[in-house]
Amino acid sequence: MGQVIATYQVYDKDGNFAKKAEGIALGLTVGTWTNLPDLEKEQLQKHKGQVLNIQELSEDDEINRYFGESRKKALIQVAYPSANFTIDFPAILTTVFGKLSLDGEIKLIDLDFSSDLLEHFSGPKFGIDGIREVLGVYDRPLLMSIFKSIIGRDLSCFGEQLRAQALGGVDLVKDDEILFDNPITPFDSRIIVAKEVLQKVEAETGKKTLYAVNLSGSTFELIEKAKRAVELGADALLFNVFAYSLDVLQALAEDPEIPIPILAHPAVSGALTSSALYGVHHALLLGKCLRYAGADLVLFPSPYGSVALKKETALGIANELTRPNPHIKQSFPVPSAGIHPGLVPLLIQDFGIDSVINAGGGVHGHPSGAVAGGKAFRQIIDGVLREVPIDHWVQEHEELSLALSLWGGR
Amino acid sequence: MGQVIATYQVYDKDGNFAKKAEGIALGLTVGTWTNLPDLEKEQLQKHKGQVLNIQELSEDDEINRYFGESRKKALIQVAYPSANFTIDFPAILTTVFGKLSLDGEIKLIDLDFSSDLLEHFSGPKFGIDGIREVLGVYDRPLLMSIFKSIIGRDLSCFGEQLRAQALGGVDLVKDDEILFDNPITPFDSRIIVAKEVLQKVEAETGKKTLYAVNLSGSTFELIEKAKRAVELGADALLFNVFAYSLDVLQALAEDPEIPIPILAHPAVSGALTSSALYGVHHALLLGKCLRYAGADLVLFPSPYGSVALKKETALGIANELTRPNPHIKQSFPVPSAGIHPGLVPLLIQDFGIDSVINAGGGVHGHPSGAVAGGKAFRQIIDGVLREVPIDHWVQEHEELSLALSLWGGR
Repeated sequence: MGQVIATYQVYDKDGNFAKKAEGIALGLTVGTWTNLPDLEKEQLQKHKGQVLNIQELSEDDEINRYFGESRKKALIQVAYPSANFTIDFPAILTTVFGKLSLDGEIKLIDLDFSSDLLEHFSGPKFGIDGIREVLGVYDRPLLMSIFKSIIGRDLSCFGEQLRAQALGGVDLVKDDEILFDNPITPFDSRIIVAKEVLQKVEAETGKKTLYAVNLSGSTFELIEKAKRAVELGADALLFNVFAYSLDVLQALAEDPEIPIPILAHPAVSGALTSSALYGVHHALLLGKCLRYAGADLVLFPSPYGSVALKKETALGIANELTRPNPHIKQSFPVPSAGIHPGLVPLLIQDFGIDSVINAGGGVHGHPSGAVAGGKAFRQIIDGVLREVPIDHWVQEHEELSLALSLWGGR
Repeated sequence: MGQVIATYQVYDKDGNFAKKAEGIALGLTVGTWTNLPDLEKEQLQKHKGQVLNIQELSEDDEINRYFGESRKKALIQVAYPSANFTIDFPAILTTVFGKLSLDGEIKLIDLDFSSDLLEHFSGPKFGIDGIREVLGVYDRPLLMSIFKSIIGRDLSCFGEQLRAQALGGVDLVKDDEILFDNPITPFDSRIIVAKEVLQKVEAETGKKTLYAVNLSGSTFELIEKAKRAVELGADALLFNVFAYSLDVLQALAEDPEIPIPILAHPAVSGALTSSALYGVHHALLLGKCLRYAGADLVLFPSPYGSVALKKETALGIANELTRPNPHIKQSFPVPSAGIHPGLVPLLIQDFGIDSVINAGGGVHGHPSGAVAGGKAFRQIIDGVLREVPIDHWVQEHEELSLALSLWGGR
């Protein structure tokens, strides 16, 4: 029988984790157990939650200081039978972390879906391999960039910025996640202008670039809007999934009439992931859940920039996005924020070539402009993969030389 | 011109809040400002975020201990022009707390919508007055109860439990939020059985009781499912809004073909509200946002039970749900969890008569059963409102007497 196994991080003064775990396993399934008649126990057995494991961890000094007292810490695992819920994210999240999310210091660390449940999640339509195929790029990390200060700017500015980024050799250009439908650069027009600009660049240079338009607006208009985007020739969708829900992402990803990649943006997710005590673990929410829900690319804070995650946290997300899974394609990790060419050796070392290098200021802030900014990135990516000494490499690559002088990393 | 003013609670080592606030106001709107040519400044003026206020607060000892260093604390207010977003929750949340939610210790405390924006939110269809009219109950807090251990139980058990609760004088009976569509008690059948049971009780006793069925499943099926519920004669909907989104709640509430009240359940919201450092303030998320999005009744943890909020926090939610607003009806506050009859005097004192007293164990756990459990609640509500001495009152009310002996409060 199917089940979801939830792993929680909990704290307790007395360390009575067995009682706490049992309370969760019963309270969130059949309610009571011990005093039930045998016949009822038999009937309810397949609905009963089960404590699978309790692992006491060493105490956390920060947490103890915060509470002004010693708190034991543990990971507990509870199995929830799928007989209790429908196989969708809202029902599963409500079951495993609905009322429980309100119950003191508890953090949802992981969810394990039994394989029969996993079949209900088709995951990314494209995934890493599919996107590589669309772009014809197989042997290096992809390069993504974003528009600069685009709010309030018109379509010609939009088109110019897009052209410069494409000419620099960028593989994907994404909308700013705070650019919504607006009279100056409407959704439909952005797609049409982008198509024109990018086809022209491809005709000139042979280089294909994809533009990800921000799919926004009311939930119940999204599917039709996404289909319209496809008809207009959109390459990809940017989606602020946490302003909507995992379930909405899944519906978009599963719709056969929306046959383009989806980039999931982490906007608003910090409200769920940032606390050490509460909420949902980064690797689960931004990693496993976004992949199961069907994100082809997932943006998350890099370990290097100003908006930074701890390195192990960022790597944990990337690991969930790419670990082997026979049922579900890999999603591209896109560690973002504060990325400049000098960080590329580190990015490739940490995230491998199956990742996307994503920059905003690191492209547009180049001393010679955005075209040079893109080139500098492509140059250092090539240099790192060829394992040439960077000091030597910059002598032949002016754009890279200027970038490293400005941002460091030489 | 319209705007949303966001209030954030932030921490900083050096207390340089002006710089931080300015960085937010620009970074989340036009990007850069100081070095722009005058012409561009003129064009972009209406898109530029503005710092409205910075209020330094006294330091928080707990927070300082947690970080092992002193951190200044402040509230900062930033105005975001509505020219930058469409008037829907996903766009507004992404603007004011999208990337920013990932940016260190920052909590979203409040949102103020200018009146032209407020017109886009119609709020509850019924509200407090509308629900009182449906029930014909005007002069006391309402009484709500919930099924006990209903998972795995069949429709006859469901019907029996419902009948007992209705006979006890309960005004609203809600589904368990973890009861989804299932073969034993399917959504449609629950509505049909409930209708039968409740009409029969009303014929016998003259007392009207509403049943709130849990609206669950995939997002894009919800509207049709809710309409089907209405056709089947459903009285009200229970909705796990935070497993979906505020925007989905709003769509349900605004749909004229779903003319029944909606109870918003706080499941999963603890992941967003619990941290002192991160996420979203309770009063904003469970209070103002749920009301604007159209919840007629809002459940939240009471200050008394095991799953407890601080009293000021719970009162803060209730205040947002009921404060005067010329555009938007009041939502019923439903402080929940751990409620027994002995707490009713306190509940009425704290939340007033325009609130809902909601009990599970406090009804079903009554020594004489659930009918007596409901009666005990109705008896103490009457007693409190008549301002009779409880010691005297219990002598005439056996059910109440038994309840207070069991749970205390005499």
